[in-house]
Parts: sequence; C-alpha cells; structure tokens
Amino acid sequence: MVDKAHSSETVATAKPNPFIEQWGWLKGYSGSIFADDLVAAIIVTILLVPQSLAYALLAGLPPQVGIYVSIFPLIAYALFGSSRVINVGPTAVISLMTAASIAVLPEGTRLISAAALALLTGGILLIAGLLKAGFIMNFVSRPVVSAYITGAALLIIFSQLKHILGVEASGNTVFGLFGDLKANAKFANIAAVLTGCAAIFILWAVRRYLAFGLVRFHVKSRIAKLIARTAPIIVIIGFIILSAALNLADTHNLRVVGTIPSGLPPFEIPNLGLGAFQSLLVPAIVIAIVAFVDSTSTAQELAARSRGRIDANKELLGLGASNLVAGVTGGYPINGSMSRSAVNFSAGGKTPLVSIIVALFMALTALFLTPILKALPLSVLAALIIVACFGLIDFKSLWRTWFYSRADGITALATFLAVLFFGVQWGVLVGVVLAMALHIKGTLQPYMPLVGRFPGTEHYRDAGRFNVETNEQVKTLRIDESLYYANARFLEDRVAQLVAESPEMTDLVLMCTAVNRIDASALSSLQEINRRLKRTDIRLHFSDMQSRVKERLYRSDFIESLSGQIYLSQHEAMEDLEPEPDWNQLSDHVDIH
Amino acid sequence: MVDKAHSSETVATAKPNPFIEQWGWLKGYSGSIFADDLVAAIIVTILLVPQSLAYALLAGLPPQVGIYVSIFPLIAYALFGSSRVINVGPTAVISLMTAASIAVLPEGTRLISAAALALLTGGILLIAGLLKAGFIMNFVSRPVVSAYITGAALLIIFSQLKHILGVEASGNTVFGLFGDLKANAKFANIAAVLTGCAAIFILWAVRRYLAFGLVRFHVKSRIAKLIARTAPIIVIIGFIILSAALNLADTHNLRVVGTIPSGLPPFEIPNLGLGAFQSLLVPAIVIAIVAFVDSTSTAQELAARSRGRIDANKELLGLGASNLVAGVTGGYPINGSMSRSAVNFSAGGKTPLVSIIVALFMALTALFLTPILKALPLSVLAALIIVACFGLIDFKSLWRTWFYSRADGITALATFLAVLFFGVQWGVLVGVVLAMALHIKGTLQPYMPLVGRFPGTEHYRDAGRFNVETNEQVKTLRIDESLYYANARFLEDRVAQLVAESPEMTDLVLMCTAVNRIDASALSSLQEINRRLKRTDIRLHFSDMQSRVKERLYRSDFIESLSGQIYLSQHEAMEDLEPEPDWNQLSDHVDIH
Repeated sequence: MVDKAHSSETVATAKPNPFIEQWGWLKGYSGSIFADDLVAAIIVTILLVPQSLAYALLAGLPPQVGIYVSIFPLIAYALFGSSRVINVGPTAVISLMTAASIAVLPEGTRLISAAALALLTGGILLIAGLLKAGFIMNFVSRPVVSAYITGAALLIIFSQLKHILGVEASGNTVFGLFGDLKANAKFANIAAVLTGCAAIFILWAVRRYLAFGLVRFHVKSRIAKLIARTAPIIVIIGFIILSAALNLADTHNLRVVGTIPSGLPPFEIPNLGLGAFQSLLVPAIVIAIVAFVDSTSTAQELAARSRGRIDANKELLGLGASNLVAGVTGGYPINGSMSRSAVNFSAGGKTPLVSIIVALFMALTALFLTPILKALPLSVLAALIIVACFGLIDFKSLWRTWFYSRADGITALATFLAVLFFGVQWGVLVGVVLAMALHIKGTLQPYMPLVGRFPGTEHYRDAGRFNVETNEQVKTLRIDESLYYANARFLEDRVAQLVAESPEMTDLVLMCTAVNRIDASALSSLQEINRRLKRTDIRLHFSDMQSRVKERLYRSDFIESLSGQIYLSQHEAMEDLEPEPDWNQLSDHVDIH
Repeated sequence: MVDKAHSSETVATAKPNPFIEQWGWLKGYSGSIFADDLVAAIIVTILLVPQSLAYALLAGLPPQVGIYVSIFPLIAYALFGSSRVINVGPTAVISLMTAASIAVLPEGTRLISAAALALLTGGILLIAGLLKAGFIMNFVSRPVVSAYITGAALLIIFSQLKHILGVEASGNTVFGLFGDLKANAKFANIAAVLTGCAAIFILWAVRRYLAFGLVRFHVKSRIAKLIARTAPIIVIIGFIILSAALNLADTHNLRVVGTIPSGLPPFEIPNLGLGAFQSLLVPAIVIAIVAFVDSTSTAQELAARSRGRIDANKELLGLGASNLVAGVTGGYPINGSMSRSAVNFSAGGKTPLVSIIVALFMALTALFLTPILKALPLSVLAALIIVACFGLIDFKSLWRTWFYSRADGITALATFLAVLFFGVQWGVLVGVVLAMALHIKGTLQPYMPLVGRFPGTEHYRDAGRFNVETNEQVKTLRIDESLYYANARFLEDRVAQLVAESPEMTDLVLMCTAVNRIDASALSSLQEINRRLKRTDIRLHFSDMQSRVKERLYRSDFIESLSGQIYLSQHEAMEDLEPEPDWNQLSDHVDIH
C-alpha cells in the first residue's frame, strides 16, 4: 500500500499521454509558425554544413559521413524525441568518443564499425527508454557534466592541432597526442599553419566581436547574434576560394577535403561478425550514457527557458531511434548539439518541423553541393572545431565548485583529469562513481548521539549539545542516518562501546527518527545487537520509527526475537521505561500495531 | 565543533596504542604457547608446500616463485599485520588475478612483471594504510564478497581443466577458456587425465570423509579434522612416487613440475621501465583491493570467533609490507589465505610466531626439498587447486541472498557473472559500483508525505496514513531522505506539484526530521524553490532540522534570502503559523540561534 501510494505520486508528475503530447504541435500549426521554423532551419543548416564535415574529420571518418548523419536521423528525432528545439546530428564530444572507439580497429573496417557503433548505441538507448531508465540522469551531477565538457573540449583542441600543423598524430589522451605532435612538429606544413592560424583568429574575432559591432551599427541585438553565429560560413567560403584559386593542395601540399561522393546515404545494416559487435559493446554503452546525459542537459536547459519540461524516458527513445537510423544509413553515433539547438532556439524555431526542413536542406547538400567543398582545407575545418571548443571550456565553474563544496570539487577535478589523461570515455564514469562513493563515504560513520529530554517538554535532543536530562538505566541513541550495508558494522561498534561505558544500563532505546531505510545487511546487524544485548540483560527498544521502515521490519522475524518494544514516539518510550514516575499510570502507551 | 565531537568519538573506538598492542603477545610468551605455535606451524607448512607450487602454476609462473613468496613475506606480515592467526602467502584468487594481469605481456617479461606487480600492490596497500583508507572495506558488502569468491572458484576450476586434460588453453574468462578447451580436447593426454581425475577423487574423498571416518574410530574430533586437512600431502607424495617409478614424464609425455632451482629467493628490485609500471598500475589497484577485502574478511571471521578485533588500517600496512617484500624477493602478489589461516586457528596457533616458524620451514624446503618435487605431475597440482575450490563455492548463500533482498541478490548475481564472463578483475568492481548505485537509486525519489497533527497531541504524522488535522493555508511536507545531488531535482518537482494543487497555500513548511545532510546541489535547489515560492507569495519554512544540518545552512547565504523561518520543532512552527488560535500568545517560539 505504501509503495503504491508512493509510485502513483511519481506517475502524477509525468505527462498524462505522451503520444498526444508528442504530436501536440501539429494542432494549430500555421503559416506564421512555418515562417519562424523555415528561418530557423536555414540558419541551423548554414551552421551544420561545415560542422558535419569537421566532426566527421574529428571522428576519423570520411567527410560525407558527417552529412549522412545530418539527414535521416534528424527526421527520426523529430518523430520520437521529446524536445521541440533540440537539433541532433554530429557533435564534437561524441565524434571524439567514436574516434577513440574505432582507432583500435583495422583501418579498413572503421567505416562499417562506426555504423555498427551507432546501431548498438541506438539499441541501448531504445532499450533503456523502454525500461524507463531515464532516472540514471540523476546519477550525473552538474559539476561532473561541466568538468567533463571542459576536459573533452581541451582534448578535442589538442587532437586538432595536427591539422593546424599539417602533420600526423594519433592517440586518445593528451599524453599520446603530445608525444606524436612533438616528434612530428618539425615536418609542419607552412600552408596548413598559415591557413589554420588565420582561420582560428578570424573565426574567434567574428564570434567575439561581430555581434557587438553590429549592435553598435544599430542592428537589433537578436539579429546581430544570429548573423555572428552564421558568419563562419562566409569565412569558410573565403578559405575555399583562396585554396582553390592558389591551388594550395598541389602547390603547397595542403591537405583538403577532396572529392566527396555526392548522393544520398546508402541504406544498409552494418554486417559485422558477432565478435566485432561484442568488442564494440562497452564503447557503445559509454557513448549512449554520454549522448543521453549531454543531450538531456541541453534540452532541460532550453526547456527551462520556455518553462517547458523534458521527459528523460522519451528523450532516450528519440535519441535511440535517431542513432539506429544513423546506423543503417552509413553513419556514426550522434546526439543533441548544444550549439545548433541554441541557435535554433534563438532563431525562433518553434516545432520539430525545423529538424525535418534541415534534413531536406542537408539532402540537397549531399546531392548537389559536395563539389564546392572539395578545396576546403582540413586546417580550416580544424580551426572551426577549435573555436567551437573555446566556448565549451569553463574553468570558472570548476573553480566555483571547488570552493562551494570540496566533495563536488574533487569529483569535478577527477572527471576533468580522467578525460585528459585516460581518454574521453573514462571521464563520466569516473565522475559518477566518485560522486556516489563520496556520498556514501559521508554515511559510513553516522552521527549517533546520546539524547535526553529538554526539562519540562516532550522534546529529546542531543545530550552532547544541549542541557538535557538523561538517566543511567535507560539510555537512548539517536541514529542520524539510514542503516545499510556500508554502516551496519559501525552501528554494532557504537552500541558495543556504549554498553562498555554504561554498567548500570538496563534498557537501550534506538531513536530512529532519521532512519529512512534498513537494508538486509543492517537488519542482520540489528539481530546481532539484540542477541548480544540479551546476553548482558539489556533490553533493546526502538522509538520514532518511520511507518515504512516499521512495516518492513514486521515482514522479517526480527520483531519476534526483539527483547524490548517498538514505541510510537521517544516520549512514550521514556514515559514507559523511566523508573522515576508512578508506574501505575504509565501502562497506556499507544501501540498502533 | 560538531565535526570534532564526531571524530573524537570515532577515534575512541580505535585502539589506544597500536604499537604496544602489536607486540603485546611477546609479553607473557611461554614454553607451552611455543609448543602450540610449533604444532600449528608444522601443519600449516604441510599444507603450504604443495599449495605454493600449485598457485604459482595457476599464476602462470615457475613453481619456485610460489615457495619464494612463502618465506620473507610471512615474516613481514608477522611484524606489521594486525591478525594473530592470518597466514599470508600465495592464494588462489590473487594468483588467478596475477595470471590475468601478466598474460597480455611478452612471455620473457612475465617473471619480472609479476614481481613488479607485487611491489606496486604493496606500495598501494601501504599508502592506503598510511592514509587510513581502511574504511573502503565498508563499501564491499558481504553478498558481493561471497558471490565474488564463488565466481572466482568456478573460473579457477575451469582454468585448471587444461592440466587435467594435459592440453594448452589460455584465456581469462569462461568463454575464452571454453573455446580453447573444446578445440584442444582431442589432444588430451591419457596419463594426465587418469592421474588428474584420480587425484581429484582421492583428495575430495579425503576432505569429505576422512575426518568423519576417524571420529568413528574414536579419534578426537579436533585431531581428526587436522589430520584430514593435512592428509593431501600423503596423496601428493603417493603420486610423486607413482610418477617417478613409472617415469610417466618420458613414457607417457605427462607434464611434471620438473627441476626446481634450489636456494633462497633472490633479493632484487624489479627493474622495469616507467611505461611498464604504468601499465601494471590499474591491475595492481584492483589486486590491492581484492587482497585487502579478502584477507580482512577472513581475519574478521576468525577474530570474531576469539572475540578479537581487526584494525583494517593495520591490516593494510601488514599486507602492504608483505607484498613489498614479495616484490623484492622475486615473488608475486599475495594475501591472507583462508584455508591456511583456518588450519592455523584450529591447530591452536596462538601468536604471529607461527608465521615466522612456517617461513623457516619453507626456507628449508627451498634449500633442500626441491629435488623431491621434480616428478610431481601438473595434473595432480591442478587436482589440488580444483578440490580446494570446491570448498569456496557457495551457491546456497547466493540463493538465500536473492530471496532475502532483491537488491543484494541482483548485486551478487552481477558480481558472479562479471567474474565468469569478463574476468576475475571485474567482479569486485562491478559488485561495489552496483551496490552503491542501487542504494542511491533507492534515495532518488524520497517519500515526501504531507503531514498533519494527531488531534490533541504535539505529534505530526503522514496525512496519507493517519487521521490527522491538516489545513489549507499552512502545509507541511516531511522529507524522508537526505537531500543531495541525485534527488535535489525531485524535491523541486514535488514542491511545484504541491503548489499547483494548493491554491490557498500561504506557507509551506519542510519538516526535516529525517534529513541528515544537504549538499551543495540540494542547497541550490532549495534556493531555487525559495525564489519560485516568493514569486507566488508563499513563505518557505523549515522545522525539526538537525543541528548539524542547520549549522551548515547558516554558513551559506541561504538563510538571509529565506522568506520564512527555521523552527526548532514542527509543533512550534504550527503554533506560530496556523491561523486559528489567538495570535498574541504565540510569538514566543524558541529559536536557538
């Protein structure tokens, strides 16, 4: 009955009918909303075309793969996702994780393995969504997400330096990359260095000053921001023209995107052996977790601005469906992009139709625009990634976390360092496990003070802090923590110590006001305590126990063997047990069972 | 001040002066105690000689390494360890973990890598001991340990089948081993199969029936048990004679121990590059954790029988010192052996001197007895390991755990499967992380009932369960859980839901009786709730807050912005806030700050 009441409460906070809610935006769709959506879609596409090439490069895959994952997966998310403004597709962090996962495989199988990875990731997300596992979002605290993204951004910048230098370098950690870069720096290509550095400077200046400058020329702030966000396409077109005009690829050996096969993505199920799928399973699980946490954080952030809410379980389904589609259309794992979703939101995109329009535009790009991109230098794409990552680095919040709470600070720092030195796939895991461990460490040695009565009241307080009445025969320990496997032994020790100190004790009351749970290990510790106290003729009682906890105890055989009683309140326990008052008047304690 | 009081309490439960305690047994040492110790040492040695060879075989190392780690490391533990009866040295589980850790390295470097692994493990344990990290023992629940040992025992049995069949097989999981065994079974060596199966049967029968049979012949039960425990040496000597007499190694191609170099272990620091040490770091951490948990569980079990206590931090130092010594004397990681410690205990060993005498006997073995062991078949050593593992398998307790508590059952099952299918190094990690995650999952959606007053009393109870008085203007939510990062958002949702349901509400009281902790994430959620409630003209109050929690809140700036008050008790809050009674009489609520 309790659990039922509790769970119905939980359900009440969820949405009544997700399917109707999902398609709610179709009702009342109008021409003016379509105009908003179309503008947003154009701006998102302008951002997405160069990003799709760049992130495919980051993932170690041919450029067209980035375009492929920007078509059908977007439609899948529009149909199944829960956020109205999220734009899914290739993103920096997931691209880097893909690179790390397939780097160990033979060169020839990487393309198909990336698709298999997307298929697995999608399957895991879908299953998690069907199992309503959205709650795992709660395991990842904000400091962990923020430290993870900062670490990943730094690592991504590091991984792109090779394109700026025009040399080879591999490795999935700062160590590995640094070694290669140091060894190969002497072979740096002058054209790559010049175009790369120029692109970084121009893109950074555009990002930093263009909106500000436009506002000074009386452009509206919102419009100025959108122009600044999409201006990179002009910069990139400029570099394409420069590269093509000077034929830098041949004259200066500059690496460029090269011929991209035009056409729509192929539909095929990646045909890998069972063994290969098995070896991709753990990377896929980690990618699924990060993709989910990252997208959902972004979606929640944007939903909060428009007072909306995100259903984490629906988000799992949406991401799962779009990754599955990415897997069967020659793609690689994707998730919600923070930068493009933010642009969509501020450009006024209202409905999931934006994603469908963007998908159409990207299909047109795949069919007709790829020849234009041929001369685009890789160094310029790397510059685009690097400048995008500047915006993700947030040391200030790491610093603030450290001063606010040491435990959160340690967790964030460990996450950050794990990303840099063990690789991007370890960061979130390290952070989540450390956060859990530090929380549990805080409960290992619960505060268990002796309590006594505030003179003249029915209030019982910590005898070490307040001037209260205690007595030598009947002692009360208040347990300020749930009892479970990690602190059960500590309780045994604390009681043993109290018994050793209290030769006159005849009754021990455990005041359980703050005990929210007693698990199986703790129950066997209580049985052990009861047995030992019986031997020394001390009765064991409980008071102020929460009804739910009491009900669970009654389901075991512990109550039958208990030497004392379970009192509704501490005051009743003391009225009944304390020797001083007139005993005849005090036998009427309430027992609700 | 609180923290100080709390920590001094913790220190009080530790021992007053560990150094004096450590050497306490020397005071009052007598001839009769020495007689007991000598007998115990002889019996432990008889058990240890074949075990040391067998476990070295299991670890994939030459047989003499098993003897080496049974000499100086035992002396080190006697000097620094905390248990009086623990016998350290080679053990099955740690040997298997060593095998898994060094299997990936080139054949020629395995010996030195094993020594380096012991050095690293020892260093980690020592540092953990100096940092007083013994508390991590509490993270490992009994069901995890028990499932881990059962899984490891099965995996060890599986790994020894190759010696019983006389074929090659490698792999660190059931999958890997099974594939190899299946492929090679057709090359099985008849002599290996016959000696191996015969040895398994005889050793099993001796273990199962000898003590029982001796008791029927009026041998004292304790003596009968000791004879049964040491009888395997007779079986092994029998097989050595059989193997030598028939010259099975040459005539039937039976694999035998072969020539063991005689002499004491070499003293040398394993000279590996920094890179190799780095690659052994993670395995060493996992081995250190398992060695510590396993030894300490055994030590606690035995200490409880003689009403002693184990100091987990001292245990870390003892194990650390003995692993360091193992590392510089050509050994590999070791820990406390359950079987030999139990034999030591039941043979009446009283002091750490037993270990020193055993070390002397083992040194004599290394110097003079190795030629005798030459003809010992590997199949018989494998039989010894397999029969020892029979005793470690405990499905009954797995089964019991499953029925007692589903969460513990899932954790135990996952641990068991992780050992078998991912390898022995993953089991404890999976178990520990899953136990933490399930505990935390139980706190994600705290029970937060509306409460009301029991008519005519000062008691406030769950309005959904009891017939209590509530009112529409002043509502009280009781929070039955500590507030921290994982459930902070749920609190926000619960309050938002209550506000939506309660149009007349002017005051919300959060009754914090069971809130033992409020972390940084939860504090920012409370700030958010306070801010939102202000906008809708609802004041936020707290009642029954624990002093420690209150003190932490006062350290932040939350209290200044709080729209309501913090009341000492729920009754005072209601007396002050409820609209019905005469307002003039109720302004004297106690505020202790």
